[in-house]
Amino acid sequence: MIKIENLHCCNYKLYQNKKMFCFGIDAVLLADFAKVKKKEYVVDLCTGNGIIPMLLNCKSNSKKIVGVDIIEENINMCRKSAKVNGISEEVIFYNEDILKITNRLGKHGVDVVTVNPPYMIDGSGKKNVTDEKKIARHEIMCTLEDVIRVSSDLLKYGGRFYMVHRPNRLGEIFYMMKKYKIEPKVMKLVQPYEGKVANIVLIEGLKNGKEGLIIENNLVVYNNNREYTEEVKKIYEDKK
Amino acid sequence: MIKIENLHCCNYKLYQNKKMFCFGIDAVLLADFAKVKKKEYVVDLCTGNGIIPMLLNCKSNSKKIVGVDIIEENINMCRKSAKVNGISEEVIFYNEDILKITNRLGKHGVDVVTVNPPYMIDGSGKKNVTDEKKIARHEIMCTLEDVIRVSSDLLKYGGRFYMVHRPNRLGEIFYMMKKYKIEPKVMKLVQPYEGKVANIVLIEGLKNGKEGLIIENNLVVYNNNREYTEEVKKIYEDKK
Repeated sequence: MIKIENLHCCNYKLYQNKKMFCFGIDAVLLADFAKVKKKEYVVDLCTGNGIIPMLLNCKSNSKKIVGVDIIEENINMCRKSAKVNGISEEVIFYNEDILKITNRLGKHGVDVVTVNPPYMIDGSGKKNVTDEKKIARHEIMCTLEDVIRVSSDLLKYGGRFYMVHRPNRLGEIFYMMKKYKIEPKVMKLVQPYEGKVANIVLIEGLKNGKEGLIIENNLVVYNNNREYTEEVKKIYEDKK
Repeated sequence: MIKIENLHCCNYKLYQNKKMFCFGIDAVLLADFAKVKKKEYVVDLCTGNGIIPMLLNCKSNSKKIVGVDIIEENINMCRKSAKVNGISEEVIFYNEDILKITNRLGKHGVDVVTVNPPYMIDGSGKKNVTDEKKIARHEIMCTLEDVIRVSSDLLKYGGRFYMVHRPNRLGEIFYMMKKYKIEPKVMKLVQPYEGKVANIVLIEGLKNGKEGLIIENNLVVYNNNREYTEEVKKIYEDKK
């Protein structure tokens, strides 16, 4: 079942297969949170249906955006979306294991890495690796450490790293970032409602950066009427 | 200039020398945040005027609380406070460099370590080590890594670590905690006002703990009338 989503962004369309992992607010928030400057070269790991490259391409004047995913069907869908949006030359997708991606893209040449990785630690026991939703959600094909190590390998000196994740992994996230020389620089927690604990965290890191973290004000997604808050509406509203 | 503060807690008094570092809200919040169970053995590093051991002794039925500070004058003041409060047998103070404290207290025997360490990285150039306020505020006599390594050495398997610090050091804090096998388990950010960025962070760690961090709701210190919020008033109100 293929669904075509309107991205409210440069009139882009996005093909999604409902049996695969469909994009949620996490990806939208990450694309908003990530800063991409003119002529920068961006790589989006675990790109899924390619939502983040599409949104980043719309909001920035990047030189090139590359999306990488291990699932072939995802990449076919991404390419279809890029084609229908007329951006196949700037937004390029590779069906590749991120553990091997530096073979293709080289090391230390990327300005910005974005990633919305699987959030959950792989449980014990074997999982069916053909289950695409499980791959998107669980650390089956790559761990948090893999994601951060590969990001560090891709990034140039002073390159920026943007990740969305679950706050309960924050200890590991900061540990791994520092282990692989990506200094945590900005953190923004996202709460579903005012007074509820944060369930999403947005992080900016700087390759070879100096120590010193800025904590931004929390973002609240819904007001008490279960509608998006003004801040979130602004992120979702039509752009360009 | 010696000042005697009423702690609003078991009618305890606290001697403070105004030329030394006087306690602020950080210490009060940490003592409130830290959980101390019956018969537990607690060590407070960088104890200063001993505020944290006093507050913990009032709120808990700990077996023993030890406060450690490198400045002799601080420890004299701590002992004076313990004596006037009639708790010199349960709350004991040592004038000792924390880098040597395991020589006196041994390793892996402590249930809970609390610490309100110097927040600022020591700048370049030599500082006058007789300047007690500088020692309390800057990492002159011990670094963040020292504090965490020594805490880990003191703690028994499954022991708890409580620290108050600045959120801009969070990357380093989590890195060092994990490096020395103290898993970050709870984090609480403290904002001076609603809508202002957090400037204090409270952290609970578990020695040899499993991964998984709980982010508690932020604490807001002042309301818009510049009065303490209800939550903070409750922390400060008279106890016992």
